[in-house]
Amino acid sequence: MSFTYNRTVYFQDTDAAGVVYFANVLGICHEAYEESLAASGINRKDFFTNPSVAFPIIHANVDFFRPMFCGDNLVVSLIPQQLSINKFEITYEIIIANVVVAKAITRHVCIDVSSRTKQELSSEILHWLETNRRDAEDAERRKLRDIL
Amino acid sequence: MSFTYNRTVYFQDTDAAGVVYFANVLGICHEAYEESLAASGINRKDFFTNPSVAFPIIHANVDFFRPMFCGDNLVVSLIPQQLSINKFEITYEIIIANVVVAKAITRHVCIDVSSRTKQELSSEILHWLETNRRDAEDAERRKLRDIL
Amino acid sequence: MSFTYNRTVYFQDTDAAGVVYFANVLGICHEAYEESLAASGINRKDFFTNPSVAFPIIHANVDFFRPMFCGDNLVVSLIPQQLSINKFEITYEIIIANVVVAKAITRHVCIDVSSRTKQELSSEILHWLETNRRDAEDAERRKLRDIL
Amino acid sequence: MSFTYNRTVYFQDTDAAGVVYFANVLGICHEAYEESLAASGINRKDFFTNPSVAFPIIHANVDFFRPMFCGDNLVVSLIPQQLSINKFEITYEIIIANVVVAKAITRHVCIDVSSRTKQELSSEILHWLETNRRDAEDAERRKLRDIL
Repeated sequence: MSFTYNRTVYFQDTDAAGVVYFANVLGICHEAYEESLAASGINRKDFFTNPSVAFPIIHANVDFFRPMFCGDNLVVSLIPQQLSINKFEITYEIIIANVVVAKAITRHVCIDVSSRTKQELSSEILHWLETNRRDAEDAERRKLRDIL
Repeated sequence: MSFTYNRTVYFQDTDAAGVVYFANVLGICHEAYEESLAASGINRKDFFTNPSVAFPIIHANVDFFRPMFCGDNLVVSLIPQQLSINKFEITYEIIIANVVVAKAITRHVCIDVSSRTKQELSSEILHWLETNRRDAEDAERRKLRDIL
Repeated sequence: MSFTYNRTVYFQDTDAAGVVYFANVLGICHEAYEESLAASGINRKDFFTNPSVAFPIIHANVDFFRPMFCGDNLVVSLIPQQLSINKFEITYEIIIANVVVAKAITRHVCIDVSSRTKQELSSEILHWLETNRRDAEDAERRKLRDIL
Repeated sequence: MSFTYNRTVYFQDTDAAGVVYFANVLGICHEAYEESLAASGINRKDFFTNPSVAFPIIHANVDFFRPMFCGDNLVVSLIPQQLSINKFEITYEIIIANVVVAKAITRHVCIDVSSRTKQELSSEILHWLETNRRDAEDAERRKLRDIL
């Protein structure tokens, strides 16, 4: 199965139009990424404040299909994929009651923090990429088998 | 027992000093309030977008004892108390590994949304106040009994 | 000239990595959009809480070229473009000291708020689209003339 | 005159109740503090990411008198005051069209970042405290003179 994160929509996520403010949806996706790192045994504090290695986002995009309201129960699933020796991306799907309400992607590059130059993905993140990729593939295979 | 809400510190809660941005702590307390309303059977979407009755915050304060870092597991407990016919306040305590790291208060007034004038607390919120107050008192009584 | 919005990076825009949190960049772009609407004579409160017409974002994307730090002076320029009878998009460029640090796009659809169905762009937004498009084209033409 | 900061209310400051989310008001006050530091010649990036000295907030409180809507033009004035050898506080007043809509206080302690122990206020912040305090006193004196 691909990793999933359950998240309620809070009042502060919303705006005066009564729905989740668009940019906050990307923040919620990033929370799912953080939970997935923690589930893989990565220490979040160390990971996000590591003085030598960081994984800044170089691209993000998001598509909105349905509005999200205060109190809605979101299920965020994510599938990461390695793109090159120093890059990976994560695809997110947000579901409410079995309906996809948004999809998003974040693309990350591994850098040396002090010089801000690219460097090879660390073994820790490669392990996370592999585990989550395999879990997602297994889920896809099972789904396909059920259809056939 | 008083109502408790478990909340991890996410990357977006933090600032360039490496800890949770001070105002976000009040947002986390408000999330606990929302979870407590939901636990009491209140529909959050209806509650927070009700076109006739609202409970805006007229005062908030917060004391910080320890910094909170990305990945920290917060336990937020809250105790509400009715202050008058149209006002209530909520006291929050945030704990990490049995240490109190912050305390906060929010004070709310019941208003008629269109006229923005005060009105008596609704039966729904009175029920929530009573339930949570009683739970908190029971917890206090048990604690006292254990000490004696 | 295309519309520009000057914005300092505040402490709350940053995260524990010491730079602006990625999703906040889209929020800053939206501020530029709001300022551009106001400059065109649109009342922002009415526009964003209009009970009949709204322009929710159906897609957003952003590319990051350089990190943004607390205190950095951003110049956000934007160019809107009508896409169809009920859609438009806005292209944003964020510049620090003449260097492009990020680019973003938001795509908006005009809807009837109560039914949440698409409807034709209002005359107010068509006027804003036309004005800002023309200004941007004039700027492009002048730039080209200077080069030739 | 006491330092003032002009700030429009943006869409992302609001929540589904149609007004500024309560905790965001403290964020707006902090922006005023940052602008005031910059006006005093302090480099914000250095100040907020100094690896040795920091001024974390140990207490904040805020009172709300009127709701703030998207597009409202806020004037935030602030007066800082030294409290002890290692502490200061800032009083904020938020005004819309000559009406006070909110008042807030933040209390800061000077710490050594690595040990997180209290230390004496730096000369830089003492200079800022003195300048802003004197400006505020001059304003008070002039106001009093006008009344007499």
